[in-house]
Amino acid sequence: MSSLSNKIVSSLKTIIKSEEFTPLHAPIFEGNEIKYVTDCIESNFVSSVGEYVNRFEKDLATFTGVKHAIVAVNGTAALHISLLLSDVKRDDEVLIPAMTFIATANAVSYIGATPHFIDVEERTLGVDSDKLEDYLNSITEIRDGVCYNKNSNRVIKAIVPMHTFGHPVDMDKLNIVANKFNITVIEDAAESLGSFYKGKHTGNQSKIAALSFNGNKIITTGGGGAILTNDDKLAKKAKIITTTAKIPHRWNYNHSMIAYNYRMPALNAALGVAQLEKLPEFIKIKRELALKYKELFKDFTELKFYEEPSYAKSNYWLNVIILDKDFKNERDNILDATNSNGLMTRPVWALLNKQSMFKDMPSMNLDISNSLEKRVINIPSGAWL
Amino acid sequence: MSSLSNKIVSSLKTIIKSEEFTPLHAPIFEGNEIKYVTDCIESNFVSSVGEYVNRFEKDLATFTGVKHAIVAVNGTAALHISLLLSDVKRDDEVLIPAMTFIATANAVSYIGATPHFIDVEERTLGVDSDKLEDYLNSITEIRDGVCYNKNSNRVIKAIVPMHTFGHPVDMDKLNIVANKFNITVIEDAAESLGSFYKGKHTGNQSKIAALSFNGNKIITTGGGGAILTNDDKLAKKAKIITTTAKIPHRWNYNHSMIAYNYRMPALNAALGVAQLEKLPEFIKIKRELALKYKELFKDFTELKFYEEPSYAKSNYWLNVIILDKDFKNERDNILDATNSNGLMTRPVWALLNKQSMFKDMPSMNLDISNSLEKRVINIPSGAWL
Repeated sequence: MSSLSNKIVSSLKTIIKSEEFTPLHAPIFEGNEIKYVTDCIESNFVSSVGEYVNRFEKDLATFTGVKHAIVAVNGTAALHISLLLSDVKRDDEVLIPAMTFIATANAVSYIGATPHFIDVEERTLGVDSDKLEDYLNSITEIRDGVCYNKNSNRVIKAIVPMHTFGHPVDMDKLNIVANKFNITVIEDAAESLGSFYKGKHTGNQSKIAALSFNGNKIITTGGGGAILTNDDKLAKKAKIITTTAKIPHRWNYNHSMIAYNYRMPALNAALGVAQLEKLPEFIKIKRELALKYKELFKDFTELKFYEEPSYAKSNYWLNVIILDKDFKNERDNILDATNSNGLMTRPVWALLNKQSMFKDMPSMNLDISNSLEKRVINIPSGAWL
Repeated sequence: MSSLSNKIVSSLKTIIKSEEFTPLHAPIFEGNEIKYVTDCIESNFVSSVGEYVNRFEKDLATFTGVKHAIVAVNGTAALHISLLLSDVKRDDEVLIPAMTFIATANAVSYIGATPHFIDVEERTLGVDSDKLEDYLNSITEIRDGVCYNKNSNRVIKAIVPMHTFGHPVDMDKLNIVANKFNITVIEDAAESLGSFYKGKHTGNQSKIAALSFNGNKIITTGGGGAILTNDDKLAKKAKIITTTAKIPHRWNYNHSMIAYNYRMPALNAALGVAQLEKLPEFIKIKRELALKYKELFKDFTELKFYEEPSYAKSNYWLNVIILDKDFKNERDNILDATNSNGLMTRPVWALLNKQSMFKDMPSMNLDISNSLEKRVINIPSGAWL
């Protein structure tokens, strides 16, 4: 082990006392989870028509302050529907960060659209709006109010900023740029349930947004996601398109469009209702843990502990250290040393433009993403720590 | 009410004594459902990496006698993946019954392929293989071993026979025809868990098959489905493509293809394990109910109670009466009278070729489907009756 990786392992061990392997994150079920799930089973309505589905949607809308939440089987499904409802069509382009989870590029591909990769900024870990504006100025032109990529001659329909590890993108800046180019914004809030941007919940800064409740997220429904929107019509459409678009009738089976079987089952929603009750507590504990890490790493010259942007109150879903450029070659030593010593860590996702199926997709210069890819490390962030 | 609808209501009431509205089907949770789901929550692994997922897959393989079961978020997802693994590509055609649930045509559309509608036979409610063979003889030609629709010049890649209401299609006949034309068979066994064809479980007569565990099915996981296959390679691929195709590594995130987030969460699988334990009992009770209905309707000249084909042992998931052609105009009277008197009934699905989004798709003559659409009525079939 290198001296830096040694130092990181021993530092982390002052906070993480467990003898067992400590994951990055794990759910905590100390509330009404078993009670509600049992009640759901006893009600006999475990499927998507169960009452817990409506209740979870109502609770999510209340918590986030967004008018409508429409639950789905997972975050990928929520993103897929958000893209469809933003009128993304086959052969359109969708701007997404190269530094995000693969599901975003996959969801774009399901429609036959093309992911177009954009860079992030180190300060927010999210989309760099200044760089984006320069790029769009150089490669696009607006024809009849529609933004075209002059190189590919395809429409750039939407952009999917992602609130990385829970830290909000600077949405006001991004919205100004997106508006200028007539590009629809879809917030990927999969990691940022409980994170606020200038006092409003993430997902409330765009027409439509997606949440995730996968097992590794701040609350979980086993698998699950949700679409958030303040638009009544979009909310109605989201419900229709996630439930096979069946036209209500006493007995007839007619459907209004090609649609999806994406609605969350009540069994999962019941778990979600209980988890959401505990969310304020999880956020509090995770923010306290972040403070401890901040203190722990404050004298490290080789790295910095990542802190929320000044405009944000973050859920600190996954804590992050960022190696100084001079220490980027230490990344794999640190990953090896921590994982070998019972402390789960991971790098950021391999950049999407480097994945075999997306390597020929259009991309802006990705200097910052390329640099961060070599320097970002997630450290254990469970709310039990 | 007409005299026939009166007669049906009063006859059904001799079997169905409940004062409350009696649905077509509803799940029964009288086994280990709460125990296993509680255990799953207490294990902390409620998501798709949980042990209950593997256990449910093993139990499904054991019950069906098919070598591999790969669980998914629902039956639509299982069908979608089965089509992809059968090499169905954009612009291919897939033969599906016009008389089936919309999910089949939707799943074909997700790939950008074209549903091509075929007729069923009244004896089995499934694909009419003789009529299919005549049709394929007239519209197709084989070039380099590939079946082309001469009219559209597109490849006919696959056929998706569906075991309607649990009653098995005559698979031996169908497989002979499909083989002759080099068309891959994908069994849609969504409704036929617990149904056997010539002693083997449905889904075991083709290279790949799909199951569903939606809330209305003979067992439920809330929402869920599974892919069945005896092929080791296909099974491996099915698991990869339903789990974002992440390449295993201690920490790196690389993915081998555009893939899906389709794996069933452990919370749902835990319910499935308990439900599957009770399946033999459910089948026994449902077959007894079918016998009662057979006796009840034996002297009706206006309709017949549908019985399993001679080669089959059916799960009788949904019981069916079929009106005589002279009484087809009574269908809506009967649906109205029964539903108004606390007895849920429904017609078969509106034919898929009549749905707005599929009305221009290719189709063979659908005389039998058109006739059955006006005459088929499902009657209450819950295992508690």
